[in-house]
Amino acid sequence: MLVVQKYGGTSVADAERIKHVAGRIVRRVRQGDQVVVVVSAMGNTTDELIDLALQVTDDPDPRELDMLLSTGEQVSIALVSMALRALGQEAVSLTGTQAGIYTRPTYGAGRIIRVDTARIRFELERGRVPIVAGFQGATEDQEIVTLGRGASDTTAVALAVALGAARCENYKDVEGVYTADPRIVPTARRLSEITYEEMLELATQGAQVMHNRAVELASVYELPILVTSSFVDAPGTLIHGGPLMEERNRVRAIAHDTDVAKITIRHVPDRPGIAAQIFEPLAEAGISVDTIVQNASEANLTDLTFTVATKDLRRAEALMPAICEAIGAAGYSTDANLAKVSIVGTGIQTAPGYAARMFRTLYEHGINIEMISTSEIRLTCIIKKDRVEEAVRALHDAFQLESRDEVQGTG
Amino acid sequence: MLVVQKYGGTSVADAERIKHVAGRIVRRVRQGDQVVVVVSAMGNTTDELIDLALQVTDDPDPRELDMLLSTGEQVSIALVSMALRALGQEAVSLTGTQAGIYTRPTYGAGRIIRVDTARIRFELERGRVPIVAGFQGATEDQEIVTLGRGASDTTAVALAVALGAARCENYKDVEGVYTADPRIVPTARRLSEITYEEMLELATQGAQVMHNRAVELASVYELPILVTSSFVDAPGTLIHGGPLMEERNRVRAIAHDTDVAKITIRHVPDRPGIAAQIFEPLAEAGISVDTIVQNASEANLTDLTFTVATKDLRRAEALMPAICEAIGAAGYSTDANLAKVSIVGTGIQTAPGYAARMFRTLYEHGINIEMISTSEIRLTCIIKKDRVEEAVRALHDAFQLESRDEVQGTG
Repeated sequence: MLVVQKYGGTSVADAERIKHVAGRIVRRVRQGDQVVVVVSAMGNTTDELIDLALQVTDDPDPRELDMLLSTGEQVSIALVSMALRALGQEAVSLTGTQAGIYTRPTYGAGRIIRVDTARIRFELERGRVPIVAGFQGATEDQEIVTLGRGASDTTAVALAVALGAARCENYKDVEGVYTADPRIVPTARRLSEITYEEMLELATQGAQVMHNRAVELASVYELPILVTSSFVDAPGTLIHGGPLMEERNRVRAIAHDTDVAKITIRHVPDRPGIAAQIFEPLAEAGISVDTIVQNASEANLTDLTFTVATKDLRRAEALMPAICEAIGAAGYSTDANLAKVSIVGTGIQTAPGYAARMFRTLYEHGINIEMISTSEIRLTCIIKKDRVEEAVRALHDAFQLESRDEVQGTG
Repeated sequence: MLVVQKYGGTSVADAERIKHVAGRIVRRVRQGDQVVVVVSAMGNTTDELIDLALQVTDDPDPRELDMLLSTGEQVSIALVSMALRALGQEAVSLTGTQAGIYTRPTYGAGRIIRVDTARIRFELERGRVPIVAGFQGATEDQEIVTLGRGASDTTAVALAVALGAARCENYKDVEGVYTADPRIVPTARRLSEITYEEMLELATQGAQVMHNRAVELASVYELPILVTSSFVDAPGTLIHGGPLMEERNRVRAIAHDTDVAKITIRHVPDRPGIAAQIFEPLAEAGISVDTIVQNASEANLTDLTFTVATKDLRRAEALMPAICEAIGAAGYSTDANLAKVSIVGTGIQTAPGYAARMFRTLYEHGINIEMISTSEIRLTCIIKKDRVEEAVRALHDAFQLESRDEVQGTG
């Protein structure tokens, strides 16, 4: 079978780890599989290169920043290929340009428009393992474009789709997707499988396992992704389209995120067009708004609350006086000491009792709920930041996530 | 006028120096010149990348090593271009591939076979300064190939020739070519001009100013090269085809090199084919032999002495027993504590008195001459290493190199 394996920056952080990764790849090839490898830059290389650029100028030109950053993955692919050859395995490193990954000319945020797989197939036919630079592609004019932070995952999924691979394997410094952060909940359990939608909700709600764009792309093409460890042999977590073969406890995992600040606008006139007047200036300033809550109002006045990343709070706050004046609101207040805690699982909104159990659990621990938001497969409460670890543990316990046996997914 | 400027690794070693270089380039463009820039990797980047490769494998694959090393220059070009743009000067970095530098597919030792200047000309016409990665090119199949150590000089000269530039300017951490190493001879004087041949002899004899391949290429196409400082405004040294406009003291400079070891083979039978039997095994082992001296012999037996770089002595010595046996020589001896000191200047061999003055100067200082070799424009004595600085100072003094006025060359 043909598989695409992706190794993240931690897995190739130094020469020893690179040799370890090479050993893994060789064993896989000797089992009879065809393997295409995608690698990220070593360790913190990308951040170090950005620091270097910022020493030269406060505002690096986007094309030149891409020219700079793309060297990080180029170093990794060369070293991984060398390590494979040192083990007697024919291999060939390919830059994004050489691998035929074509993108739009939007520097720093390239979107893959097509993959010309001719070179990769040629190398596979010669018995070579292609080692492809993640995170980068080229325009039709051979200009180097990067795909945005964390986008090596996207490169791997796009290659797997274009090559018709059986699946994409994502090797990381964790053993898979867990029912909660194991650093907070010692009894957290690895999930053997999870749906694309659940993974997207978990990622959006703070679980840093897979890049969302990659999961979305895999979902569209129904490509299974295995998330597993590059350090130990572990069965990992299979992300696929479902149905899940596990028993039907619909809560799959607890996600949390401590990067939450809220702004409340008081006494907002309740008339059409108000929301646009509030959120357009924020969007123009490049500030992403997460949860928005507006209560039903009396006397045509309401309070409207929304959350932003803490790093964006100061810039968002600077826009507030003008916004309040424009819409005729009474004023605003902010709180930067918040966190989100979410339960995620297919079907929790349609099944009774999950929301009630979440609210009761938090209540029993004396944790106040500041805001609530929901999706089809998620229920999120915004609470004080200093209570979030307790909330995660309490919810993991209340939904009995540590105890369930799982059936191994097959993909 | 169109000029190609080349900045070496020391000149772009950190963000501050890169900004300084950018300032220089901008001033030149504002004077009305068209500038194409070639840069090396920052500081010791190339050595650091080689170390990294050697941590992964003792014997890195040459293609993958080129993939790795080429990132060094790619980082520099991106940063220099950013720095120019930060100063309001349009600029665009170009990898060797993008710049149209085509090479043979001999990884690690690429030779430039042609330069497609279309992209560079296109950028110049748009008013942009092209910043080209030195030391690298691509095959017709877009495989990345490096040109060998120090070859960024060659990239610059090749581009200047292909573009029909008025000259190539080589910016370094020295102010030009000196009559001797200023660290040894405080009165050493910068030469305002020097011929290609003199420069080649100086470089071969130990002066590390310009890469020989670059000087040879410039000589073939009669392209003037200015060697000057990137740190201070200095008139530099113009390397050109002559004739020199200076007064006719034919000794131009004193070169020295302490990286010299000799091997003497005793009682070599004086018959045809002997030299091949000695030097072919050394060539096959990749050992470069420098000076070879064989005296006229009596009784069909002679002593033959040759020099190698000190790093090659051990490997050369290992070949000697077999060679001596094959040719029927009596044995061999070695000496690793030697140095070369040379006087260089067009016409010194045909003019009387220079050799005599050199020998007398060394004699008066009690410095023994172990070997002598000559070329059209050079006279070299091999002496004990611990006397070389004294010899350089004595010869600089004897040939009055500190005192002469020069006429500024114009190229």
